[in-house]
Amino acid sequence: MPSSTQSETMNFLNQIATSYPAAISLAAGRPSEHLFDNLDHASLLSAIRTYEAHYGARGSLLQYGPTAGLVRDLIADQLRIDQGVPATAERTIVTTGCQEGLALCLSVLCPDPTDVLLVRNPTYVGATGAANLFKVLVVALDGSSGADLPTQIQQAIVRERKNGRTVRAVYLIPDFDNPTGEVIGLSDRKKVIDICAYNQVVILEDNPYGLFRYEGIDVPSMAALDVSGCVIHLATYSKTIAPALRTGALALPESLFGDRLALRTCLNRIVERKSFLTVNTSQLTQAIVGGLLLEQDGSLRSWIEPSRRTYQENLSAMTAALRDTFGESRTHVSWNNPAGGFFLTLNLPFDFTAADVDVCATRYKVIAMPMSFFAMDNSQDNRARLSFSAASSRQIQTAVENFGRYVDSRTTSHLAGHG
Amino acid sequence: MPSSTQSETMNFLNQIATSYPAAISLAAGRPSEHLFDNLDHASLLSAIRTYEAHYGARGSLLQYGPTAGLVRDLIADQLRIDQGVPATAERTIVTTGCQEGLALCLSVLCPDPTDVLLVRNPTYVGATGAANLFKVLVVALDGSSGADLPTQIQQAIVRERKNGRTVRAVYLIPDFDNPTGEVIGLSDRKKVIDICAYNQVVILEDNPYGLFRYEGIDVPSMAALDVSGCVIHLATYSKTIAPALRTGALALPESLFGDRLALRTCLNRIVERKSFLTVNTSQLTQAIVGGLLLEQDGSLRSWIEPSRRTYQENLSAMTAALRDTFGESRTHVSWNNPAGGFFLTLNLPFDFTAADVDVCATRYKVIAMPMSFFAMDNSQDNRARLSFSAASSRQIQTAVENFGRYVDSRTTSHLAGHG
Repeated sequence: MPSSTQSETMNFLNQIATSYPAAISLAAGRPSEHLFDNLDHASLLSAIRTYEAHYGARGSLLQYGPTAGLVRDLIADQLRIDQGVPATAERTIVTTGCQEGLALCLSVLCPDPTDVLLVRNPTYVGATGAANLFKVLVVALDGSSGADLPTQIQQAIVRERKNGRTVRAVYLIPDFDNPTGEVIGLSDRKKVIDICAYNQVVILEDNPYGLFRYEGIDVPSMAALDVSGCVIHLATYSKTIAPALRTGALALPESLFGDRLALRTCLNRIVERKSFLTVNTSQLTQAIVGGLLLEQDGSLRSWIEPSRRTYQENLSAMTAALRDTFGESRTHVSWNNPAGGFFLTLNLPFDFTAADVDVCATRYKVIAMPMSFFAMDNSQDNRARLSFSAASSRQIQTAVENFGRYVDSRTTSHLAGHG
Repeated sequence: MPSSTQSETMNFLNQIATSYPAAISLAAGRPSEHLFDNLDHASLLSAIRTYEAHYGARGSLLQYGPTAGLVRDLIADQLRIDQGVPATAERTIVTTGCQEGLALCLSVLCPDPTDVLLVRNPTYVGATGAANLFKVLVVALDGSSGADLPTQIQQAIVRERKNGRTVRAVYLIPDFDNPTGEVIGLSDRKKVIDICAYNQVVILEDNPYGLFRYEGIDVPSMAALDVSGCVIHLATYSKTIAPALRTGALALPESLFGDRLALRTCLNRIVERKSFLTVNTSQLTQAIVGGLLLEQDGSLRSWIEPSRRTYQENLSAMTAALRDTFGESRTHVSWNNPAGGFFLTLNLPFDFTAADVDVCATRYKVIAMPMSFFAMDNSQDNRARLSFSAASSRQIQTAVENFGRYVDSRTTSHLAGHG
């Protein structure tokens, strides 16, 4: 993916809501503001006080702090309790949001021009953007053959090796993928781990949505399944506490492919590089995370329950509205049924581009995200990502109805053009 | 400078205080904790409330926010008022500490392998470390010839051009340099700007200590003197409000070497890359900075006055103790007399290495920073950087006396070795 497209996507995501104030946005994957209902000024302060009461002797929170973080122990606890990640304080690095953790991993794991990061197609633009920043070669997995994910990864590793390149890492969001909403099943997770362990490829398991499941039962995180030392787990508190805390974490495995010294070297390199990017993550925001984790006895599951229910209702509203609007299938519109997360994928009978977004937002008052913004080729041109996290159920219903009228206008004019 | 040395330095700075709890540290350049005297929980909250009262309609502070920042207008005002920087909101980018701003600038300004960053020797390790992170070639100015700074820069530009490389940027801390404490005079500032403007070299003016002057009168910032569009001003609130806010800023000039479109492109690239590093700077910490700036009517000069006086007294205590301890000059120890900032340079009659730090800290209970940690060659091996920002006057006096005994032990054994 060319850098301009990544930037375009990121700018689009950042600016979209303000660009069309009259339209309902199903574009950005920001959390619902209901997430902040229990996070007023008093509770922010209470979290800091709880943290200070627990760790009073650690010195002023307002100072510089250790590069690897202040609340590594509390974060490791939460990742163990909530996600089954075998995290320990010593192998946890607190980062300035998950994005910094991702950028640091790519910089450390892929130092050479022949090192390759594998990504799915489509994939989260923050991964390809961070790779681009450090001039890391990105190769998209080939899903067009119909091969399953483990086979795609195996094939890519072999293909790159033939081309004189080395796959060093694969970026995955196994739970409720951004942008597709899909989940990697247990059997595929195990196969991917086996393939990556054998080929010494690090799995970067990005997990922003793992706690937001609306039906079915949890699949163990890849870090929980990893016994070979090939999974780095990327955590964020942007979706579970607040994006403004800019606090995330990396949980590293006990060894790197069985080599404990290699793991230690990798960890030290990440920490060193962090010191040249952001020095350390804000101790103030870390203390808020830490205090809240203390107050919640180490688990965020009940803390996020109101927002989880909101998203669940929003998703129901979206699929109901999609059925009502496109149920006759006269327009050949289809969609997936994600079991969690923030996103749903819509398949359209026409290409949906950035220019189309403008028409759709201006005339039909709804903002949808072209899936092509997350794609490495043109295979996603006729798809859209619909986010159901930030808008209300009622807004979602209206937005889908509006989008239905937009689709009608496209298919009618399409037919007219060929009639 | 090899990467391992940078990491060593950064680790040293981060770990030193905890490594020798019984020793007085003159190593790290962290602000005095007195800086936080007026920043208790209530005043942090008050700052957020002040911000919200002023900009109530901007939405929840707890959400994601614009990549370029929330309080660009307030920061631009402060930089204009306090430093004469011709900043505007549109040309100001809020960064996750000054370090992120520096890293972003290097990444954008020096994309090609033949692009060069010029630095002084010795220089701040965060600059060479960030350059290393993005594989930017760092070239040290040659101060050994006795040429003045403008001539050194001119010579380096020509020399690099002959070598097929292009100097894109020069990193300077014109006010109370880290590590040396030196100030670049007005005439040299003007000459450097002329040379850089003519050769299209960007001056990265890092200014953490500009407000901490203890004698004499302010020299205008290089950004204030720049009419050619060649100075990017790097600002931080770590020394003026609190490091834990991790909030700094870049103030870009009106044009890049007279080209407004080139400036716009540069700014957009910085913002794009920031979105792939840290997404946006915490809106919570930005609101604290913004609220405090509102409460202080746009200037931090009175806010920092108590810490400025503390540092002034500390510097007096340090130079007095140095005179008392080394005044007879029997040991050939000399030092500079910085007019501001956090650091003083000590010239020693022997090499002072990392191994020596350990002996000095363990046996003489004082931690000094080898200047070689900031050097690009061995020209600084017999110097030390003494910080007078964080310790108390009394501690500084004791520390210098202790260091005197350490010097005695070194020179006596040195003499003994040759006797």
